[in-house]
Amino acid sequence: MADPRFFPHAGELSLAEVAARTGSKLVNCPDPTVKVDDVAPLEAAKPSDVSFLENRRYLDALARSGAGACLIPGDLVPRAPAHMALLVTGAPRRNFARLGWCFHPEPGFEPGVCPGARVAASARLGAGSRVEPGAVIGERVEIGEGCLIGANTVINDAVVIGCGTRIGANVTLSHSVIGERCEILPGARIGQHGFGFDLGGDGTVRMPHLGRVMIEDDVEIGANCTIDRGAGPDTRIGRGSMLDNLVHLAHNVQLGCGCIVVAQVGIAGSTRLGDHVVIGGQTGIVGHIDIGDRARIAGRAGVHRNIPPDGAVGGSPAVPIDEWRRSVAILRQLARRGPKVLKPGKGGGSNG
Amino acid sequence: MADPRFFPHAGELSLAEVAARTGSKLVNCPDPTVKVDDVAPLEAAKPSDVSFLENRRYLDALARSGAGACLIPGDLVPRAPAHMALLVTGAPRRNFARLGWCFHPEPGFEPGVCPGARVAASARLGAGSRVEPGAVIGERVEIGEGCLIGANTVINDAVVIGCGTRIGANVTLSHSVIGERCEILPGARIGQHGFGFDLGGDGTVRMPHLGRVMIEDDVEIGANCTIDRGAGPDTRIGRGSMLDNLVHLAHNVQLGCGCIVVAQVGIAGSTRLGDHVVIGGQTGIVGHIDIGDRARIAGRAGVHRNIPPDGAVGGSPAVPIDEWRRSVAILRQLARRGPKVLKPGKGGGSNG
Amino acid sequence: MADPRFFPHAGELSLAEVAARTGSKLVNCPDPTVKVDDVAPLEAAKPSDVSFLENRRYLDALARSGAGACLIPGDLVPRAPAHMALLVTGAPRRNFARLGWCFHPEPGFEPGVCPGARVAASARLGAGSRVEPGAVIGERVEIGEGCLIGANTVINDAVVIGCGTRIGANVTLSHSVIGERCEILPGARIGQHGFGFDLGGDGTVRMPHLGRVMIEDDVEIGANCTIDRGAGPDTRIGRGSMLDNLVHLAHNVQLGCGCIVVAQVGIAGSTRLGDHVVIGGQTGIVGHIDIGDRARIAGRAGVHRNIPPDGAVGGSPAVPIDEWRRSVAILRQLARRGPKVLKPGKGGGSNG
Repeated sequence: MADPRFFPHAGELSLAEVAARTGSKLVNCPDPTVKVDDVAPLEAAKPSDVSFLENRRYLDALARSGAGACLIPGDLVPRAPAHMALLVTGAPRRNFARLGWCFHPEPGFEPGVCPGARVAASARLGAGSRVEPGAVIGERVEIGEGCLIGANTVINDAVVIGCGTRIGANVTLSHSVIGERCEILPGARIGQHGFGFDLGGDGTVRMPHLGRVMIEDDVEIGANCTIDRGAGPDTRIGRGSMLDNLVHLAHNVQLGCGCIVVAQVGIAGSTRLGDHVVIGGQTGIVGHIDIGDRARIAGRAGVHRNIPPDGAVGGSPAVPIDEWRRSVAILRQLARRGPKVLKPGKGGGSNG
Repeated sequence: MADPRFFPHAGELSLAEVAARTGSKLVNCPDPTVKVDDVAPLEAAKPSDVSFLENRRYLDALARSGAGACLIPGDLVPRAPAHMALLVTGAPRRNFARLGWCFHPEPGFEPGVCPGARVAASARLGAGSRVEPGAVIGERVEIGEGCLIGANTVINDAVVIGCGTRIGANVTLSHSVIGERCEILPGARIGQHGFGFDLGGDGTVRMPHLGRVMIEDDVEIGANCTIDRGAGPDTRIGRGSMLDNLVHLAHNVQLGCGCIVVAQVGIAGSTRLGDHVVIGGQTGIVGHIDIGDRARIAGRAGVHRNIPPDGAVGGSPAVPIDEWRRSVAILRQLARRGPKVLKPGKGGGSNG
Repeated sequence: MADPRFFPHAGELSLAEVAARTGSKLVNCPDPTVKVDDVAPLEAAKPSDVSFLENRRYLDALARSGAGACLIPGDLVPRAPAHMALLVTGAPRRNFARLGWCFHPEPGFEPGVCPGARVAASARLGAGSRVEPGAVIGERVEIGEGCLIGANTVINDAVVIGCGTRIGANVTLSHSVIGERCEILPGARIGQHGFGFDLGGDGTVRMPHLGRVMIEDDVEIGANCTIDRGAGPDTRIGRGSMLDNLVHLAHNVQLGCGCIVVAQVGIAGSTRLGDHVVIGGQTGIVGHIDIGDRARIAGRAGVHRNIPPDGAVGGSPAVPIDEWRRSVAILRQLARRGPKVLKPGKGGGSNG
């Protein structure tokens, strides 16, 4: 079972209750009153655990698993070992997640301003919200109901935070309007001015960055991300978008809804992403371009041009994904054959 | 107008006053007493806003803009719409920035040590400086006049900070001497020991890092940057250099004056940069090399060798920029033609 | 000498004492009672300093050095200038490090909970440990003896920290068990949930991440690193592994013992590294792969496949290091010769 020091346990459930909560059909189960008490991956699961199988790649792990029960799609039922109760569902992973939250609900918190937190007199704190020790809340900040503000987090003047949003420890927020049910992980920096100046003969003049960061509902921002405020327009993150750790969004960047941005990605100023764009880790995107809805960008890509909706690119500079795969294959072929495949062209040999 | 919750407004100006403050010449303006009250980019500007045009690429936006007035170079005056007052200047963007600061001056602050800040008895705080709640200032720290130390920032023993420097929230500083009028954004980590050890048979011995971080005047350090102190020599950042967010400088790195380092760049130990070097985002530079004055390094480059003054490189490993462009073009050509252009060389085909 | 504001000095030593403390043999030294008072690199060393030479590349620096004494391997003794006392040893750099710590020992600290720190009633703090101002220690946290917890650091409920571990300022820890004698630098984020969710038609469901971060003894974690807790298994870092700044480890990542991970590396979920793996800066490694013991991965690599023990790879996508070098050389050759070496293949020319 998950370490009870860190993950309080809500109690066991019968297999019949598990089936009800996950909307799955119980199969190969002589006794639906048998109790289970946790979720676990196939390799680690014990008889008291529920596991899941979604991908056929893990059929071997299924065969070897000690799980007492398994969420599984209907077509794979015949592949399960005889001892295992089966919970047949079209969405095993999704229901595994839901069941995990049943056994280990997100910990609640006691509302109020903890000793050692500093909340400005003009700030408003919604019912059921908690401000942890050392947090500093500026003038005119508006925090909705049921929010959690982590220890030693700093929220500058006039920031707005929607209901049910959780902000981790040691975060800094300024010039931002945050939606409902967002989660901002520790160490994120949101709303500082961006990187812009005019370099002239008589010294550098910093551009005034007079925009905000607008974050819609249900957004997640990873640990130690940096999201600069807009320069005049706003920096925007659409509903349900998810940013992994150490992501950088420069001023005026706009993300649509449901985007997935993996760790250490950087997006330069004024670039606009549509909805449901997926970006692999460590990719960089230049400024002032447009990335269409549902575009998919491989990890470690360097994107220099617009991508149309549904486009898929990879490489640095990024090209259509098939072209990238071919160029990787060709370079590999060249490297394996050695330089002898390349004969000097006319008059070209002497430059090498 | 910029959101007044976040950007206090200093009041409106007549076009004649705008011309005076920006050193520009008022043209196509029947009434110089007309008032404007903010700056805005061409696309967003209203009749009460001043905008700017510097790059011919945006002539279309100029034609469509609702701006009441526009900072513009003399040769583009005929391209402006008839309704728009024009402020003719050789430096439209620079004056746009200056004007923005007129309408929205950098917010001032009330001097003093806020409740909840902890300043060691032996620390010295200059007149007009402010230490925000939760900041921790160590023994013998010297802070000049007019400095702002953000909430929950930690400044370790003996650090020196010059007049007019602003340090954001949640910053950590140690073993550092910081110049005047610098700005350090939230979450930067400056002065911790670097990454150096001797791996021997009887265990790892960490190298003592006995140098400092020396930051000259007018430097900007982005959010969540990490700048390690020197190992014996110092880590140095020259006057007027600007670092974007999430930049890593290892021990002993030296930057000259006026360098521009875009987000997520990493520079390994003991590498020296001259003056006015520009480094694109996500580039990595190995240790112990020299980068000459005014060198330009493309984003996502991997620099393994010295670069002469005025050199321009790109790619990973980085090569002269023209060579990089050619190699990108050639690889692209190969990928598009497919593998059939490559015929197996003698005896080489069997390795592939 | 190292700046005494930052590096307190433990007093001078005679050359005979230096020889004893470093296990080296004094040679070319008329008077072993001569005192020295610091360590310094060859270029900066004065007569009162001890320097070291380990790599023949620096023989020129040796010849020019003003160091009073030098740690040196036996075979290079004849190359040293006449004025220099020599300390002959098989491990000059390692003994230079040790000697540096003799002159400038890691600063001690006064035990206790500083004013302004908040330690939960149920937390346990070992003898000789110190909690600096503004630190927040949660319920049931266990901190061993002789630990240092930096200012404004937040340690969430039930975290365990072994004896002699030092945690910098502004760190966030949760769901973690940390070993003895570890060092965690400022701004590291350890134990937050990872980046995992199920994207379904009726909205995103976040996966419950019910594992921990397990960090063994003698591990170093750099500034502003992010280390997510496991999803069910734990995220693990083996004994003596060293992470530079801004490294990202996703959920379930496992590092063996003695791994070296240079700055800005990212490792995706569930990837396992053996012992003594070395990873150059800015490299990315995809999830769910295995990297064998003693593998060496060049900087800026993109690793997509398993690497066998002792394997060495480079490039993105990463290939065996020799193949990578060849592909770099070939591409360079192509770029220099220009496109004329490539003749259109049959029917292929029209695609380009």
